[in-house]
Amino acid sequence: MSLNTFGHLFRVTTWGESHGPALGATVDGCPPGVEIEAAALQHWLDRRKPGQNKFTTQRQEADAVKILSGVFEGRSTGTPIQLMIENTDQRSKDYGDIARAFRPGHADLAYHLKYGLRDYRGGGRSSARETAARVAAGGVARAALAALVPGLTITGYMVQVGPHGIDRSRFDAAEIERNPFWCPDAVAAEGWASYLDDLRLNHNSVGAVIEVVASGVPAGLGAPLYGKLDSDLAAAMMSINAVKAVEIGEGMAAAALTGVENADEMRMGPNGPEFLSNHAGGILGGISTGQDVVVRFAVKPTSSILTPRKTVNQAGEEIELITKGRHDPCVGIRAVPVGEAMMACVLLDHLLLDRGQTGGVRGTVG
Amino acid sequence: MSLNTFGHLFRVTTWGESHGPALGATVDGCPPGVEIEAAALQHWLDRRKPGQNKFTTQRQEADAVKILSGVFEGRSTGTPIQLMIENTDQRSKDYGDIARAFRPGHADLAYHLKYGLRDYRGGGRSSARETAARVAAGGVARAALAALVPGLTITGYMVQVGPHGIDRSRFDAAEIERNPFWCPDAVAAEGWASYLDDLRLNHNSVGAVIEVVASGVPAGLGAPLYGKLDSDLAAAMMSINAVKAVEIGEGMAAAALTGVENADEMRMGPNGPEFLSNHAGGILGGISTGQDVVVRFAVKPTSSILTPRKTVNQAGEEIELITKGRHDPCVGIRAVPVGEAMMACVLLDHLLLDRGQTGGVRGTVG
Amino acid sequence: MSLNTFGHLFRVTTWGESHGPALGATVDGCPPGVEIEAAALQHWLDRRKPGQNKFTTQRQEADAVKILSGVFEGRSTGTPIQLMIENTDQRSKDYGDIARAFRPGHADLAYHLKYGLRDYRGGGRSSARETAARVAAGGVARAALAALVPGLTITGYMVQVGPHGIDRSRFDAAEIERNPFWCPDAVAAEGWASYLDDLRLNHNSVGAVIEVVASGVPAGLGAPLYGKLDSDLAAAMMSINAVKAVEIGEGMAAAALTGVENADEMRMGPNGPEFLSNHAGGILGGISTGQDVVVRFAVKPTSSILTPRKTVNQAGEEIELITKGRHDPCVGIRAVPVGEAMMACVLLDHLLLDRGQTGGVRGTVG
Amino acid sequence: MSLNTFGHLFRVTTWGESHGPALGATVDGCPPGVEIEAAALQHWLDRRKPGQNKFTTQRQEADAVKILSGVFEGRSTGTPIQLMIENTDQRSKDYGDIARAFRPGHADLAYHLKYGLRDYRGGGRSSARETAARVAAGGVARAALAALVPGLTITGYMVQVGPHGIDRSRFDAAEIERNPFWCPDAVAAEGWASYLDDLRLNHNSVGAVIEVVASGVPAGLGAPLYGKLDSDLAAAMMSINAVKAVEIGEGMAAAALTGVENADEMRMGPNGPEFLSNHAGGILGGISTGQDVVVRFAVKPTSSILTPRKTVNQAGEEIELITKGRHDPCVGIRAVPVGEAMMACVLLDHLLLDRGQTGGVRGTVG
Repeated sequence: MSLNTFGHLFRVTTWGESHGPALGATVDGCPPGVEIEAAALQHWLDRRKPGQNKFTTQRQEADAVKILSGVFEGRSTGTPIQLMIENTDQRSKDYGDIARAFRPGHADLAYHLKYGLRDYRGGGRSSARETAARVAAGGVARAALAALVPGLTITGYMVQVGPHGIDRSRFDAAEIERNPFWCPDAVAAEGWASYLDDLRLNHNSVGAVIEVVASGVPAGLGAPLYGKLDSDLAAAMMSINAVKAVEIGEGMAAAALTGVENADEMRMGPNGPEFLSNHAGGILGGISTGQDVVVRFAVKPTSSILTPRKTVNQAGEEIELITKGRHDPCVGIRAVPVGEAMMACVLLDHLLLDRGQTGGVRGTVG
Repeated sequence: MSLNTFGHLFRVTTWGESHGPALGATVDGCPPGVEIEAAALQHWLDRRKPGQNKFTTQRQEADAVKILSGVFEGRSTGTPIQLMIENTDQRSKDYGDIARAFRPGHADLAYHLKYGLRDYRGGGRSSARETAARVAAGGVARAALAALVPGLTITGYMVQVGPHGIDRSRFDAAEIERNPFWCPDAVAAEGWASYLDDLRLNHNSVGAVIEVVASGVPAGLGAPLYGKLDSDLAAAMMSINAVKAVEIGEGMAAAALTGVENADEMRMGPNGPEFLSNHAGGILGGISTGQDVVVRFAVKPTSSILTPRKTVNQAGEEIELITKGRHDPCVGIRAVPVGEAMMACVLLDHLLLDRGQTGGVRGTVG
Repeated sequence: MSLNTFGHLFRVTTWGESHGPALGATVDGCPPGVEIEAAALQHWLDRRKPGQNKFTTQRQEADAVKILSGVFEGRSTGTPIQLMIENTDQRSKDYGDIARAFRPGHADLAYHLKYGLRDYRGGGRSSARETAARVAAGGVARAALAALVPGLTITGYMVQVGPHGIDRSRFDAAEIERNPFWCPDAVAAEGWASYLDDLRLNHNSVGAVIEVVASGVPAGLGAPLYGKLDSDLAAAMMSINAVKAVEIGEGMAAAALTGVENADEMRMGPNGPEFLSNHAGGILGGISTGQDVVVRFAVKPTSSILTPRKTVNQAGEEIELITKGRHDPCVGIRAVPVGEAMMACVLLDHLLLDRGQTGGVRGTVG
Repeated sequence: MSLNTFGHLFRVTTWGESHGPALGATVDGCPPGVEIEAAALQHWLDRRKPGQNKFTTQRQEADAVKILSGVFEGRSTGTPIQLMIENTDQRSKDYGDIARAFRPGHADLAYHLKYGLRDYRGGGRSSARETAARVAAGGVARAALAALVPGLTITGYMVQVGPHGIDRSRFDAAEIERNPFWCPDAVAAEGWASYLDDLRLNHNSVGAVIEVVASGVPAGLGAPLYGKLDSDLAAAMMSINAVKAVEIGEGMAAAALTGVENADEMRMGPNGPEFLSNHAGGILGGISTGQDVVVRFAVKPTSSILTPRKTVNQAGEEIELITKGRHDPCVGIRAVPVGEAMMACVLLDHLLLDRGQTGGVRGTVG
């Protein structure tokens, strides 16, 4: 019910504003005995960190995470884990001129209408900086998953930047860490680099599509009907800043398929039923089947651009606005580690839920 | 936390199986004093009811809703409203041959793996019949919205069947109620009719895309960051059977837009800020802006088809399966009233939440 | 968040009014595979049923429970279990004269002030009849506990009626089922009978104290800090109609003890640590220790009495009111099975939670 | 569902251990626009602070609270308020000898059995130090209540220390702040001082009873049936360390009253119905009536005493244990500000809930 919290049993509450003293995540429900180190969390934060290349915001943040509670002698105690990231590079003056203007595509007007006041510095609570807290919490979730489900992996990557998608025939997982776009297609990555250079020179930005795949997910996670694994994944991904769509498996394309095409047929393999295809994205009836769980989400173009746009201010005056600052031409790039973090949190949550619901006992086949 | 419940303050718990004695919805949190009649709820149920034309399942269900509690002398009392729909046309014998087989594309295997046992009759809890309970609950939500927000309307319609989309230039809201597809484009509807006839003769089925639009939504509904209006809408729509993707506003297409294109510019109108476009789908930063709230979702093709598909059974034998029964060639058709119901529930929930969070006070412009 | 629901993972939503067509409980989160029969639930309902002797209300209700969902071939499926009890003996005319008057000690005024309208027939939602739904749900919880924790027992009994307490030295568990008061002290029971006879003849009523003990509770149930087992038990018992106080272990008397007296010392027994006393009531730091869990609660005297009391009506007139009807001289008697039911629900809930939180792994001693 | 969180709409998650770097409260759901200053929160913390006199622990903690988020230019923004209190006086060496022993009356054994490991320093998460976070959060709740319900007051005080209760005829609210016991009876306070001196010299401790009264509470707060105001108050108070019982109004004494005695009769006053007595403690049917809300709770004696007690250690050895450290002879003293804080949090929560449920509209009388 807490609207800054997600999860059922593994619950993450993020807090903090872009230009306040700190932000962080209160992580409740991590099982006891999990090895958790600040350095391991930092690994994931460093992947999301701004200022690492010219395609992301030039804000310089150490994003150094501190563990304030819930970990004793290197292991989780089952009590709340408080993760704090202090803000260090807050150039509030950059934002002075938008204190009373509503930037198009931003939450400014909506927050003003709802709350009557807002922390306008850098978007305040609505800033993408909040996602650092998600990534830190996701690091805790990954540590717990590693302990509880050996072999489970979560991999995110970009599959589209603006109108330019990857070529799936060139998919190479090893490429993902080699380019600034988490792109599994080296050729596409090169094209994106020059495309984004042009956009930035033209004071423009663009959207993207991110795919996150979890392999080694046990069957049985998720629950009918409003705690479906796909329903919770949809909520989790849609809660990320700038996300406008979420797909599971075939996603929107499922609408154009026939029942004959879409059926994921099964055969018996050495370890039980095997699927001949994965249109479902690893989830049937809201419950994982043991196949790869496949989620995609679309991120809209960065709303902060240097091209003037028509808008209004709090006084009701019509103005033209350029959003100065240090912004990403494609905010989707930094959404990759965030999508991974959300996947980790949702899977751990449902793993714990499943234990509570069923004791983790499974039906058998054969 | 209850996994058969959705909503924060307006909470709907659905219960019941396809072939049990009854199904229904326990609706908690309806404000007091709302006029609620069984006949008004029945109106919405009749729209979803199967067997109304050759494009939906031929199961004959009266879907008659009874109000067992929470309404006194025609008005809600603020206590739980129990809505019960008795099952009357349960031909369980139709399902005998699938008691121990796992139908491709269905929840059968997932339920078996998770729970170790399942009510296999008609899919049990995973049957689309459960959506009748959602529609009944949505009727309560609509009644409350009508009382609290005069002028708010919710309209759902199909915009794509298989690969065939509507032509937006022919959009005519009056058409929606005139054809069996809730299609706003009369020409497209004709094409869909013959297309679906062919599919059914070929023992096949197809997916669809539904759009639901809410107009007259007050600004300020939704809340950062994990109770965003779009996040809750995504969860709500993804929880509907067979849904594989949810879009808000531009949705997946937002990825291909530039920041210049995607910016919904503003000007001052007689009643405050006005937007010149609605790429955002009426939601910024997770909070409604007063524009139309626009949601789309993709429904996969009906998994129950008369074409044999390869699968396995509980004994671990590889078999070919034809799913007999009385199924919809395009289950998306009946999803239209369900999508509307979910929109109504989510909007009412956030309306009540907003009161609790802020007292409903609004910031002003000008 | 649903205010007619209790529990975290085992969630019970009760619904229904005293004089509506039916009332019941929507039980979500029962583990799959539990044997559940209407007859077994009926056993518990019959214990609470009114009209069984002259010390409880003479309303004649069959309190026959129907299972509408969630049970297939005699076993729970893991989906919501809908329990419905139809009202059959609704003499609404008895209540006509209080439609617009506020009975002292009743919820009438509070409901009116909050909701602006109320179902005044028999107290509507605030009637003790609602506890029938709790007892039915408790029956489901008992069935699940029996399957998951063999040997766990839950026993409720009265320890005080008005000023007359039992003599603990005469405590005989076998007596509990032998008298109409669930009293473990046969001598006290006799005294209560004549005391209550006198009270009824004098158009009066009286309060009571009920104790509920759970034996065989595994260590480790409960969680810091706001999901403590004792905190949840306190909420559960306080939610029962007419309850004004809840005690764990020593309860209020703990205030008068010294630290030396109150320390439950430990020694090693054959199966691990053993306590030499149980001042704590089986709970330390909010977590069960394996000792008996001991809860007591005080029930105020029945507010409906035939002695005229001063009050006001909706028109603002001062009146004197006699509450006719068929009321219990000591409503505490029927609260015994209700307290047991709440204990069962809370323990099952925490058993499931504990699995989800920790996997049920336990620290060892020795 | 988060077990370190309480509240529905006003949600407080506390975090931190006695001897970690910091502890605090993540406060979600504070309405926007409330004036909140660290200095005002500090006022409440200073009341609870240890080391202020010889009757409370001599640990020296500044208990300085920092606001890390959710407040902008002195006012709440509606986003999470993170309150952090750094630990400064952590003498961990004091606790070395109990790292593997289970102190009687403490949570040590329960935590060990549940989690398999624990932060043993000062009780870790189960330390009464956690209540500092509650008091800070309560300060936020008080600020919001002050803005929303002018005239509402919350006052806590001790009414019993060991067997020695106050004399209600000497009740003087002005006395409460004048003695170290928050005692409204100056004579009783003197007696307690010498009684506690003796106890401490004898290496002993004792329990206490605290009463918290809220005046000016609007009618209509609370909701049937599992979100009753008294049910939530019971859970809140029982969640405080060492609390063993909670009473509303007459509490346990209600059991001994007759219905004629217990009826709070009503008459019409200038502003509506008035009660002639307050046995109910201001709550009927779980909903506030406008009378004073009266809660009492019993705190057991401090478990850490210098008198040796028999116990066991993790190796399964029987030992005698003296709990060294800097402990309160009567931990109940410091529970007074904590009880007030919990009352503030629960009342604000239900005030916000009531708006969401009903729009705050009220039925009228006369």
